[in-house]
Amino acid sequence: MSHNKRLKTYPLAKAKHVKVHGRTTPTLTPLTLFWTGSGIELNMKGSELWIEIEADYQMYESWISIVVNGVPMSRLMVTTGRHWICLLRGLNSDTVKNVRVVKDVQPMSSDPRCLLQIHALKVDGELLPVPDKPLKIEFIGDSITSGEGSIGAKEETDWVPMLFTALRNYTAITAEALHADYRVFSQSGWGVLTSWDNNPHGNIPAYYEQICSVLTGERNEALGAFADHDFTSWQPDVVVVNLGTNDGGAFYSPAWTDPVSGKVHKQRLNEDGTFNEEDVQAFENAAEHFLVKLRTSNPAAHIVWAYGMLGTPMMPAIYRAVDAYKKKTKDRKVSVFQLPNTTEETIGSRSHPGLSAHTKAADELTRYLREILKN
Amino acid sequence: MSHNKRLKTYPLAKAKHVKVHGRTTPTLTPLTLFWTGSGIELNMKGSELWIEIEADYQMYESWISIVVNGVPMSRLMVTTGRHWICLLRGLNSDTVKNVRVVKDVQPMSSDPRCLLQIHALKVDGELLPVPDKPLKIEFIGDSITSGEGSIGAKEETDWVPMLFTALRNYTAITAEALHADYRVFSQSGWGVLTSWDNNPHGNIPAYYEQICSVLTGERNEALGAFADHDFTSWQPDVVVVNLGTNDGGAFYSPAWTDPVSGKVHKQRLNEDGTFNEEDVQAFENAAEHFLVKLRTSNPAAHIVWAYGMLGTPMMPAIYRAVDAYKKKTKDRKVSVFQLPNTTEETIGSRSHPGLSAHTKAADELTRYLREILKN
Amino acid sequence: MSHNKRLKTYPLAKAKHVKVHGRTTPTLTPLTLFWTGSGIELNMKGSELWIEIEADYQMYESWISIVVNGVPMSRLMVTTGRHWICLLRGLNSDTVKNVRVVKDVQPMSSDPRCLLQIHALKVDGELLPVPDKPLKIEFIGDSITSGEGSIGAKEETDWVPMLFTALRNYTAITAEALHADYRVFSQSGWGVLTSWDNNPHGNIPAYYEQICSVLTGERNEALGAFADHDFTSWQPDVVVVNLGTNDGGAFYSPAWTDPVSGKVHKQRLNEDGTFNEEDVQAFENAAEHFLVKLRTSNPAAHIVWAYGMLGTPMMPAIYRAVDAYKKKTKDRKVSVFQLPNTTEETIGSRSHPGLSAHTKAADELTRYLREILKN
Amino acid sequence: MSHNKRLKTYPLAKAKHVKVHGRTTPTLTPLTLFWTGSGIELNMKGSELWIEIEADYQMYESWISIVVNGVPMSRLMVTTGRHWICLLRGLNSDTVKNVRVVKDVQPMSSDPRCLLQIHALKVDGELLPVPDKPLKIEFIGDSITSGEGSIGAKEETDWVPMLFTALRNYTAITAEALHADYRVFSQSGWGVLTSWDNNPHGNIPAYYEQICSVLTGERNEALGAFADHDFTSWQPDVVVVNLGTNDGGAFYSPAWTDPVSGKVHKQRLNEDGTFNEEDVQAFENAAEHFLVKLRTSNPAAHIVWAYGMLGTPMMPAIYRAVDAYKKKTKDRKVSVFQLPNTTEETIGSRSHPGLSAHTKAADELTRYLREILKN
Repeated sequence: MSHNKRLKTYPLAKAKHVKVHGRTTPTLTPLTLFWTGSGIELNMKGSELWIEIEADYQMYESWISIVVNGVPMSRLMVTTGRHWICLLRGLNSDTVKNVRVVKDVQPMSSDPRCLLQIHALKVDGELLPVPDKPLKIEFIGDSITSGEGSIGAKEETDWVPMLFTALRNYTAITAEALHADYRVFSQSGWGVLTSWDNNPHGNIPAYYEQICSVLTGERNEALGAFADHDFTSWQPDVVVVNLGTNDGGAFYSPAWTDPVSGKVHKQRLNEDGTFNEEDVQAFENAAEHFLVKLRTSNPAAHIVWAYGMLGTPMMPAIYRAVDAYKKKTKDRKVSVFQLPNTTEETIGSRSHPGLSAHTKAADELTRYLREILKN
Repeated sequence: MSHNKRLKTYPLAKAKHVKVHGRTTPTLTPLTLFWTGSGIELNMKGSELWIEIEADYQMYESWISIVVNGVPMSRLMVTTGRHWICLLRGLNSDTVKNVRVVKDVQPMSSDPRCLLQIHALKVDGELLPVPDKPLKIEFIGDSITSGEGSIGAKEETDWVPMLFTALRNYTAITAEALHADYRVFSQSGWGVLTSWDNNPHGNIPAYYEQICSVLTGERNEALGAFADHDFTSWQPDVVVVNLGTNDGGAFYSPAWTDPVSGKVHKQRLNEDGTFNEEDVQAFENAAEHFLVKLRTSNPAAHIVWAYGMLGTPMMPAIYRAVDAYKKKTKDRKVSVFQLPNTTEETIGSRSHPGLSAHTKAADELTRYLREILKN
Repeated sequence: MSHNKRLKTYPLAKAKHVKVHGRTTPTLTPLTLFWTGSGIELNMKGSELWIEIEADYQMYESWISIVVNGVPMSRLMVTTGRHWICLLRGLNSDTVKNVRVVKDVQPMSSDPRCLLQIHALKVDGELLPVPDKPLKIEFIGDSITSGEGSIGAKEETDWVPMLFTALRNYTAITAEALHADYRVFSQSGWGVLTSWDNNPHGNIPAYYEQICSVLTGERNEALGAFADHDFTSWQPDVVVVNLGTNDGGAFYSPAWTDPVSGKVHKQRLNEDGTFNEEDVQAFENAAEHFLVKLRTSNPAAHIVWAYGMLGTPMMPAIYRAVDAYKKKTKDRKVSVFQLPNTTEETIGSRSHPGLSAHTKAADELTRYLREILKN
Repeated sequence: MSHNKRLKTYPLAKAKHVKVHGRTTPTLTPLTLFWTGSGIELNMKGSELWIEIEADYQMYESWISIVVNGVPMSRLMVTTGRHWICLLRGLNSDTVKNVRVVKDVQPMSSDPRCLLQIHALKVDGELLPVPDKPLKIEFIGDSITSGEGSIGAKEETDWVPMLFTALRNYTAITAEALHADYRVFSQSGWGVLTSWDNNPHGNIPAYYEQICSVLTGERNEALGAFADHDFTSWQPDVVVVNLGTNDGGAFYSPAWTDPVSGKVHKQRLNEDGTFNEEDVQAFENAAEHFLVKLRTSNPAAHIVWAYGMLGTPMMPAIYRAVDAYKKKTKDRKVSVFQLPNTTEETIGSRSHPGLSAHTKAADELTRYLREILKN
């Protein structure tokens, strides 16, 4: 390769017009990416562009996608260490390219060493401003919202980062259709009350007010992951809550015993196979309280509980919880929206919704959000 | 990252059961990949897999895709130098994964330093045999067959490797549908008689009998790229020739002047806009001679001239050439197949067929090949 | 035409193996067809087949479709009077043809002279038994279930029988996909509590237990339309209730004044545009009572409240009504299913769901019914 | 039915603004409809419309479709005799409805009594002018162009009028997409040189210059069916010739012996399964002569030989014939267009292309015609 002598290196904090996506700390020395779908966006006028990226992990490596003018051009595993990665080269330097580097994987709460950071850029031209989009959406969810299984062969069963995707995902597709900036807050297996296996710590609401407290480990703490999130810094127009799937699953999973207290948690089935009423009520209470918390943090947003991509057993309970919340608060900007179920034809890997299921869900959700945003 | 101590390094020549795709020399120390769609295929039983890859170029870098169990999981630029790339990690080591590393870019004839080589593997398990598929297909063509423009935003216009793809391409899609091993021999802009700009050196037939003589440069010569290809080593059941598009374009392009001899080449239009008969006849003669050469090299193959993804102006001439060849030779295993035209809805980047155009072409070609392979 | 001398005439009561579809009286001298989707079905071995049909009306004529081997071959207006209509001729008389004559239009409650009857058959061969299908479904609904607007140009706005269809309709499509015999009980504009214009007489539950008491007029009374329906004669496996759309509309329509009592009926909106709670509660009570009635009449059926093809404003209320019913009765075989909304692309004539909206609804409903019928 | 006293009867010759489609004689007392796709078109402002229609036949009855504002609303068999048929009733009499009555069946050459005529109209409003469309297309073909098998269940095998359709047909779909008036000249089983069974009388070119000389019988003769067609009365912009399928079939069919002369006709196969060269040459000569005749009759039209919906065995011969014609005449407005093949998924009844095959063919033909009409 003939060396490109016009390339100049910029620490991220010194590079102008780098737009950061996703909940994170204000630090750019370096920038830490926590959530799936987070990343940086640039409008580059130049022929060549590199980023310096650093990764670490015990078990679960990170993956990124590189999106050029709205189309994914590259997707790669980021192995441990600090690397310079070439995003673009050989281009006409007179035209402006929109470039996004997107974290393709959710924060891995079970791997305390998980880390992905961007240190610097190299470019042989200039960066131009990246305007904010006219709409902001926050998606809150579980494995579906983390894009688990929306990539990869149907027969894949390993729980590995390779099978997660931020882009082949209803969140990214909906945001693009609505010309929205967006953020994702999601953990595979988690629910409103408990995770799929009845663990009460696997509940999203308890973590919602921090930057990324689902993570663990001293380094993540030092990086500020557990600090309170400043909601005033980014107020969404819409909050989409895609939760309930794992709460439903908990009824069919074994009990979870707290290793410390010995306390046993279990969402119970009645003998006739229906849900135990007390346990469903606990879910409804948790959902109702989560709505209160969401409203406190996002005073003006439309809150849409969007559920159904892997069946709808919790739908009556979700309707009851939303009803109860609305009755008490007179809050009108909360609604339930049913997402289309995944079928044999639209399933992906790991028995999760595939790309066509995500696309269909995004189409229907887009139409619904367009409608409520008119009002 | 906790180091995986079970990983062992194998020079490619020492690794068992590595299947090589694409025309190349017999050397594995290292393996040189010339053509788009070429690469290696493994059946790995293990949790982690790396390759050592080396690239070089003056202008046009290489790209590879990584395909796991038939699905593309990663696609990345390979910058100059020698790199270890992790293909897979963290997997259940008891199941067998089929892994392909595929060169995504055609040989770049205008860049004498173009190079892509695989030196070695690292794996923590074993490699199992990769059986040959029951069918073999060779695709011969131009930019369409090189997958130019079948990836990337519609507005992209730069002629860069990033916008080439071996997988989102009618060749790969047809081969997969027919469960075939396949090879690709293609150069963007080239034709049967001349390239799109009337250059008589940009003719595919003149290079067909060597391994990869479209390349230039001393290093490629030393690597054996210009040596004769041993056709007995891999005999296709079908040869698909997708040429004629650039020969048609030459009628509308300026003349080309030979920088050495000063001789001017031009496929001429009549005043009424029709093709000059003498010049069309020259194309027909070239097509007919190419059929003779293809038959000599591939005595038993069905030869299918498949044309039409960017219009059909040369179709009458192609039919006449095939007619003339068949009349003289009584060769029955040669036919013409019209591929579906690209439309506004199916176009990709650089005004070339997009993924949906390639998919449609592959569907129709697959049906046709299935039919003729019955007989 | 050469007269077919082998044709023999059979009064319907004398013809063997004529299967009658749809709620009607037991009389065959002649057979009166009341509901959309009702009709007769034959397995004919012969070359030619005619029926003698009689129609009358003041305003709204009837239409029928003729279905041969499952495919609609003919659709025609039946004008007033008694007519012989040729269904088939010139066929190979050795093969058996399945033939259905289907009423394409709902009972027209505002036209007391509405009448459609079948008197006799003419055939030159024999009729063979028509076995019952393994599944029975009853659909209860409004204009959507009557197929209003699922045929005809988008710009059509007249409320005329021509724009109703029994076949291009989610009922017929679902029944065919599930290999089910089916019946339809539907009135355009009607609801659970009131019709779209707040008329409390336009409520489906009040008429559910008679054969066809939505009709009016002395002749219909004499024909037995107002008599109690014998539910033991045909017990469905599934009852689909597609109601609520007009109840939702009533909130946005002017009040209705009873011409006799002078009493005014109106589902009211609050000042902030939400539904008045008392009025929604009245709807919920009506829905809950209807479920009690449906269960009494259909002791073993799955009852599915399927709603959403023209928006989902009543969905929370429907969920609450079903919840309340289930809580009181412990009836487990009742559920809510959301049908896909109609979009600009799938709309038909008269601002109603078009064929593609009905097809999509049928696909999703079919999948859901398959699932619950497994249990 | 309450009698509509505002209805007035008009003999067709006295009704203003009735547009006649299809080749026929100038007589309107009554109007005889010969070809499939022929009929009348009205712009009616009124609430009710009837036509008086007369039919006769020995074996093959006629069928008509009624199209309202571009959408088929009714399709019915017309039995022998003279009938008043109600096309529309109960409509808002202030809006204008476009109404077409379309003959759904080709002229039946083997039934000398075949007849379909329109005598009169009854309307309670006025008829407004029907403007000509900006484009005119003539389609010439065989069973495919007659819409044989594009309606009906896949298992249907009877050769009966019910299984023919003028509307679910690439001719009607193409004409609508291009906003064209169109005519159809087609006979099931016929070819350029012979019919599918080697009968040399089943050749379309010999009948092209008369109104409808494929018919037989004294009555048809008296009606003027055998008279020369006045080509100046309707000059198409495009002539689409979809012939060759039956000429190809003749090679695989038994010989045909002339019952009068005893002469035997047979398109022969060589021992190796290829077409006998002399016999293919006879087809090519016939095709070339037909082009001369078409050009004489249609001096300014684009002539497009569109072939391939049931395979392409004759394509090389068609290309040769068109080449030979163009070489001799320098006629530039003649071209070959390959239609998409029918597949298992797109097949209809009687092993003929189904609606989806016709739709696909129409889409591709439309795109091609749009392109050539630009020039």
